[in-house]
Amino acid sequence: MNRFNECAPEATRATSVAFSATLQLALQTRFGAKLSTALVLREQHGRDESALAAPPPDAVVFADSTQDVADAVRLASEFGVPVIPFGVGSSLEGHLLAVQGGISLDLSRMNQVLRINAEDLTVTVQTGVTRKQLNEAVKSTGLFFPIDPGADATLGGMCATRASGTNAVRYGTMRENVLALQVVTASGEVIHTGTRAKKSAAGYDLTRLMVGSEGTLGVITEVTVRLYPLPEAISAAVCSFPSIEAAVRTTIQVIQLGIPIARVELIDANTVRMVNRHSHLSLREEPMLLMEFHGSPSGVKEQAEAVQEIAGEFGAQAFEWASTPEERTRLWTARHNAYFAAIQSKPGCRAISTDTCVQISRLADCLLDSVAEADAAGLPYFLVGHVGDGNFHFGYLIDPESPLERETAERLNHQLVARALALEGTCSGEHGVGLHKMGFLLDEAGPGAVAVMRAIKHALDPKNIMNPGKIFSWDGGSDL
Amino acid sequence: MNRFNECAPEATRATSVAFSATLQLALQTRFGAKLSTALVLREQHGRDESALAAPPPDAVVFADSTQDVADAVRLASEFGVPVIPFGVGSSLEGHLLAVQGGISLDLSRMNQVLRINAEDLTVTVQTGVTRKQLNEAVKSTGLFFPIDPGADATLGGMCATRASGTNAVRYGTMRENVLALQVVTASGEVIHTGTRAKKSAAGYDLTRLMVGSEGTLGVITEVTVRLYPLPEAISAAVCSFPSIEAAVRTTIQVIQLGIPIARVELIDANTVRMVNRHSHLSLREEPMLLMEFHGSPSGVKEQAEAVQEIAGEFGAQAFEWASTPEERTRLWTARHNAYFAAIQSKPGCRAISTDTCVQISRLADCLLDSVAEADAAGLPYFLVGHVGDGNFHFGYLIDPESPLERETAERLNHQLVARALALEGTCSGEHGVGLHKMGFLLDEAGPGAVAVMRAIKHALDPKNIMNPGKIFSWDGGSDL
Repeated sequence: MNRFNECAPEATRATSVAFSATLQLALQTRFGAKLSTALVLREQHGRDESALAAPPPDAVVFADSTQDVADAVRLASEFGVPVIPFGVGSSLEGHLLAVQGGISLDLSRMNQVLRINAEDLTVTVQTGVTRKQLNEAVKSTGLFFPIDPGADATLGGMCATRASGTNAVRYGTMRENVLALQVVTASGEVIHTGTRAKKSAAGYDLTRLMVGSEGTLGVITEVTVRLYPLPEAISAAVCSFPSIEAAVRTTIQVIQLGIPIARVELIDANTVRMVNRHSHLSLREEPMLLMEFHGSPSGVKEQAEAVQEIAGEFGAQAFEWASTPEERTRLWTARHNAYFAAIQSKPGCRAISTDTCVQISRLADCLLDSVAEADAAGLPYFLVGHVGDGNFHFGYLIDPESPLERETAERLNHQLVARALALEGTCSGEHGVGLHKMGFLLDEAGPGAVAVMRAIKHALDPKNIMNPGKIFSWDGGSDL
Repeated sequence: MNRFNECAPEATRATSVAFSATLQLALQTRFGAKLSTALVLREQHGRDESALAAPPPDAVVFADSTQDVADAVRLASEFGVPVIPFGVGSSLEGHLLAVQGGISLDLSRMNQVLRINAEDLTVTVQTGVTRKQLNEAVKSTGLFFPIDPGADATLGGMCATRASGTNAVRYGTMRENVLALQVVTASGEVIHTGTRAKKSAAGYDLTRLMVGSEGTLGVITEVTVRLYPLPEAISAAVCSFPSIEAAVRTTIQVIQLGIPIARVELIDANTVRMVNRHSHLSLREEPMLLMEFHGSPSGVKEQAEAVQEIAGEFGAQAFEWASTPEERTRLWTARHNAYFAAIQSKPGCRAISTDTCVQISRLADCLLDSVAEADAAGLPYFLVGHVGDGNFHFGYLIDPESPLERETAERLNHQLVARALALEGTCSGEHGVGLHKMGFLLDEAGPGAVAVMRAIKHALDPKNIMNPGKIFSWDGGSDL
């Protein structure tokens, strides 16, 4: 396997794009001021949080409505030009890069919360609503939306990448929490998937097919998700360990015993150091688990006592409790800022993020060997993990101008993915494939399964206009 | 809408089948004694628990292995002949009927439990393993598989119909609990979907596409599902109510408060009567909720107290607790036998089952009006419901020889589905579409979404050999 050379977007940029003056005029006529071809806007829409780069899209359309999306897609279809849905630009895998040119379809103005159905624990929003906005909107109902990928991503983007994050260990991922979607297909038709019922056995699961399809099968325009009652009691704790292994083995045991912990996040000592500096905290600079318990007061107490006992067996220091909401928010904000804390620790750097996920019993094997490899390579990195799910992220901090550093990071990533796949895990727990993991997906799923995915893509997007060049190659050529 | 006339399998039997002597010879050569064309076996494989009928398949192949399945599918593909996967025959929607002839592929001999990964709370089984067999196999590990559709169905069949049942209110359905599959595609290729990791964002969710595809996209040959630790404490209770409405409103409030009840089943007074007679019980012959609570001893106590308080507000009688495992088993067996109890109450009858599911806030509206309609129609029926999920089943008991009774039952079903769809619910919570709900699916999903399903079917099964004539029509004709 030698996949990382294929990640460069240059490799997937096919021919120069058929973005003609005629198309531009048609877009101008339909969208007026909602169309921009200004370079600064195009450049802003042609990058994301990955370390990848590509020429910018040819135009940006700011959609206000499903009708706008449908019309933009119909024009793109007519002219055979790519459409790349864009939310807040927080992708880590190059999903938003216009590797074949075309139109970046900015959905951030579609930010209305459409229907809060508190009595059903569901909410329907436009695609551009962000998770923080959503939680603000439903706060007064006593409900919340748990999925939390760190970034304040849009719901549409979170669907498209099958996002998860810190709460997934208890509440599941977008896969489990999306009930229904409105989608604009590649022909510009508006369809609905799913219903308001909690479960259904009626027909193919188009909702789950769209969730994780990374904009390659259609544009998600409305999202209905499940909400949960705010727990009666919440408590968060920080616990330091003598080693990463002790923290990981504590986590494994907690999960194997079925303790319904709501969050259990690993942060390694070096990353704690970066976080302390960035967020002005004074956490012990040792491997740490950051945990949260949800339930009734007695249930939370039971869970916390059980976890403390396990952690003690692995030599953990005493728990430090964050009892007030403010303290909890401060801790979780610091956790979410680990990425920025790391980036700031090496000025001008970019992070190449890994995203492997393995079954809980193999987490220690997968993680510890990769720590040893990264330490040996000498590249600075941060390490955080949704370890309750077997998912963790190295962020190798590279100078984007240094081919050697990039190559070292990609080699480490490659070794880690190979290890996870050998353990029957996945190359991506939550970030998606995008440009960066096309080769890895092929290794993971096998050519037969990728051929099935490709057949679906060809059937639903015969002109290959929906975010082309992502997940797998169109013709089975360049990803083989 | 006037859909129920389209449910007759005659309507979907296209032309007589190309099951030639050459194909039979080829099957004979490959499968020897594993091939049967005996009428009794063909008839047994040409029906299910629905009230539908069709001519039997042309042959039955008993597969022992994935290789057998692949070879059978390859021969069917070569000769352009349908393949209908068959487990234990417990479908309620005509999934197993050979409406276009062809080969019934009996998978019941593929009944090996392949890998119990207790430390990861997962198990991998061959497709023909039944849920009771699975639970027997994992019992010594302290884990269990919760999905319980009543019938002792095969895991493959449960995947194919996206089954759920009594525990789904707490543990989810097959949609949430299948991690990975091995599938034989329509060309006879073996692919794997998913991994052993708990979550993944790598590529299209082929697992979820296969779950619920009713054998129309491939044959599921291996299944990896999640297991759960056996709860520390379990308690079950029976509670009688002055009316169905009181029982339903109790359920609604329990769900809205987020009480993690493990099972909450409605049985109406008349069905309790049938169950008492069939299972020699003496339950109060009033509308009843049959409940189960899982958790720590204190957690179970908390849940039960909360539910008792709510039930009391709706005029419920005192709870009767089933404290021993034997008592619980007796109660749940009686519940699962409600179908047979009902069938026996009217000798020679068949049941036409409904399967609507709506969001919890509209459950009372949907259910109570349908009870009134059924009572007015005068046809005997049973009524049971996984009411915590908003899902319930009428079983209208008809004399299969009476067109009038069938028409009355279908009219009631039609009215109920129309009501559920108007409330934005689904025509099928767990039984699937099969033959019986093709028109309803079209009403529910709309022609655009069904066209997307059809495009996927055409892409993955271009010769239309995988359980053809189910879910939707091949050409968009007869289901419009």
